[in-house]
Amino acid sequence: MDKLASKSPEPGGGSVAALTGALGAALVSMVANLTLGKDKYKEVQPQIEALLKESEKIRGEMLDLLQKDTEVYRALSDVYKMPKNTDEEKAARTAMMQEALKKACQVPFEIALKSLEVARLAERAADLGNVAAVSDAGVAVLLAQACAQSAALNVKINVNSIKDDTYNRKTWASMQDVLTQVAALERSVMATTYKRMG
Amino acid sequence: MDKLASKSPEPGGGSVAALTGALGAALVSMVANLTLGKDKYKEVQPQIEALLKESEKIRGEMLDLLQKDTEVYRALSDVYKMPKNTDEEKAARTAMMQEALKKACQVPFEIALKSLEVARLAERAADLGNVAAVSDAGVAVLLAQACAQSAALNVKINVNSIKDDTYNRKTWASMQDVLTQVAALERSVMATTYKRMG
Repeated sequence: MDKLASKSPEPGGGSVAALTGALGAALVSMVANLTLGKDKYKEVQPQIEALLKESEKIRGEMLDLLQKDTEVYRALSDVYKMPKNTDEEKAARTAMMQEALKKACQVPFEIALKSLEVARLAERAADLGNVAAVSDAGVAVLLAQACAQSAALNVKINVNSIKDDTYNRKTWASMQDVLTQVAALERSVMATTYKRMG
Repeated sequence: MDKLASKSPEPGGGSVAALTGALGAALVSMVANLTLGKDKYKEVQPQIEALLKESEKIRGEMLDLLQKDTEVYRALSDVYKMPKNTDEEKAARTAMMQEALKKACQVPFEIALKSLEVARLAERAADLGNVAAVSDAGVAVLLAQACAQSAALNVKINVNSIKDDTYNRKTWASMQDVLTQVAALERSVMATTYKRMG
């Protein structure tokens, strides 16, 4: 967190998005772990076991994406430092820049896709999990939502510099679709959470 | 994060709320640090110095609240384990339970109040900070929003068990007021962020 707060541009918002998503997945795992082996929830044990397996998988994938985000960001920074004295140097720099930007765009886009999975897991945790931990399923969906919207900002930064309108339009439209789905899940899971809390 | 995902009920959603708020404050600090000493932003250097000082202070306070949340939760768990065989034991347990619940309610309430401060800092970072880092100010306000809503869920859990209607009504009304203010800041800071990103 000290490095995050520093003037080093990485880790930045993209990595924080992934961390937020990973924390959401961890909370789903906690709800699952607090439901496993409980007599009151014996009828949903197989579903809870499956839920835990998936939430732990996605937690790992989110942490991999956190790492990957800092890597593509560093690669992009290296391209920015390439020489641009001659026309050849300028052309080489521009070509590599476009490639690096698309890679840097892909990572937050994958983080957003993964946040949708976290939101779906939170829904299952809120529906089936131990009622004593339902607020944690609620927090999980709030984190999935923050993750998706943060990832979108980081997709947008790159899209603004990518000179490929077809790619940009397609990517941003998919991003909007993910945001809509996550927002809908956020609303319904929060309603379930407050309802089950009583 | 492994302990979060485990069946140990603490750390839980309250601590994650505080962590989320601390990450938001850290991002404000990053935006400030990426603005300090930049010629293009020389006119706002005093405001940015003040912003950094405040964001670092709140980051520390959020991390203190994270710790405090696990402590009050543990204290409450200890009260749950108190004996309740005789009427005297029952009365003692109930009295201590009510006290412990109010303490456990106060911490997420303070986290929510602090999230409002993070949202206000994010607003200043988005308005005045380096445009190259404005998306990070956007992520900061998204985290402040997730923090506030997560803290509210944790206030609600306790309010549901506290037998003091006046306290409950007052606390929950204040909580709603904080949520409204944070949500308004989230909307305006996100609008500023997308606008400045172009």
